[in-house]
Amino acid sequence: MASNRLAQFRVFGKKIVAVGRNYKAHAEELGNKVPEKPIIFTKPTTSYLSQGHPIKFPPGCNDLHHEVELGIVVGKKGYQIPEEKAKEYIGGYFVALDMTARDLQLDAKKNGHPWTLSKGWDTSTPAGEFIEKDKITNPQNLQIWLKVNGEMRQNGNTADMIFSISYLISFISKYMTLEEGDVILTGTPSGVGGLKGGDVIEAGIGDVAKITFSVDKS
Amino acid sequence: MASNRLAQFRVFGKKIVAVGRNYKAHAEELGNKVPEKPIIFTKPTTSYLSQGHPIKFPPGCNDLHHEVELGIVVGKKGYQIPEEKAKEYIGGYFVALDMTARDLQLDAKKNGHPWTLSKGWDTSTPAGEFIEKDKITNPQNLQIWLKVNGEMRQNGNTADMIFSISYLISFISKYMTLEEGDVILTGTPSGVGGLKGGDVIEAGIGDVAKITFSVDKS
Ligand SMILES: [Mg+2]
Ligand SMILES: [Mg+2]
Ligand SMILES: [Mg+2]
Repeated sequence: MASNRLAQFRVFGKKIVAVGRNYKAHAEELGNKVPEKPIIFTKPTTSYLSQGHPIKFPPGCNDLHHEVELGIVVGKKGYQIPEEKAKEYIGGYFVALDMTARDLQLDAKKNGHPWTLSKGWDTSTPAGEFIEKDKITNPQNLQIWLKVNGEMRQNGNTADMIFSISYLISFISKYMTLEEGDVILTGTPSGVGGLKGGDVIEAGIGDVAKITFSVDKS
Repeated sequence: MASNRLAQFRVFGKKIVAVGRNYKAHAEELGNKVPEKPIIFTKPTTSYLSQGHPIKFPPGCNDLHHEVELGIVVGKKGYQIPEEKAKEYIGGYFVALDMTARDLQLDAKKNGHPWTLSKGWDTSTPAGEFIEKDKITNPQNLQIWLKVNGEMRQNGNTADMIFSISYLISFISKYMTLEEGDVILTGTPSGVGGLKGGDVIEAGIGDVAKITFSVDKS
């Protein structure tokens, strides 16, 4: 069954396309302008992490940030997808963390360098289990939250995305073909912050899905 | 046979890791500092293009640049590979073009944004056929050249890389696992420049391999 295969997106999918600053309050909390068009970057699939394995700091990082995001799993191949057809390309969802080496990223931004090392190291994309498309009736009205050691740090709603999921699918596919099993990370609400070794992250989408990961600084 | 499978790297490989400014003269020609450590970015595998198909401009680009590069095909999985063992992870080579929307990239650099859209659209990684590892005795002493409409534009030697292939494999794999079929683009020598619709690009590595691609601005 197709949906069964799609549940293995972390095994066969080839790319993770992520969106920066897609919630106004998050753009502002980092002192950034609210973008006029989506800020797109990619993360390698070797960055996926399953529950039960710890999140690691990459080399040179001393400021590791959590960003909880709604992950979209692409259900079928498409290129130059019209916004009004975009929903047909959603195969499912998952709770994702877009872990960010904020210090490396700030350095990259200052120097006009790519974001890859600050976003793409092994363990930088902790991911929950695949959620069937039918389980979520309106992906643009979901609570999205994250706690560190039991304390709420991020608590937003996907209704507050600047660019909707359909707009993102259409925009990204103007540039690059989306393939079955590819992933779109739709941005993080405000409340991002630093982590230390031993911290425990819980995060989720409403009461549909929840993930737990620990942080290892060794 | 393993080498037979590896020849299909464009079909099953999951990532393209590219290196910016790895030849001193090229860093300087764009007014950039010679980097102290490798500048790493990724391109999606949907950007591969085979001969016989035209290179396209991405949306919003009016300054499309050619960059000829030696492509390395990773032969086996590795993480935190010591520099002295790096050669064991080379599975083969190919002639690659790291097509760059220079105007989009300059804009990204100015704003501290990721490079993805300026480097990652469909057709942005034209690639020649797989070259068996044994065909090249010393990958750090190869002429690497590119002509536009018969006129030589880039003519360098891989001996002039700032960071060697072994150093790059070791450096990249400190952050992310390299998998069989992944690719490393090792940077371009000086002489990059703009293209227009109808231009024909020929490029190659010494007399080992040659590619031809046309440019379509429609
Ligand atoms: Mg990138
Ligand atoms: Mg993010
Ligand atoms: Mg290049």
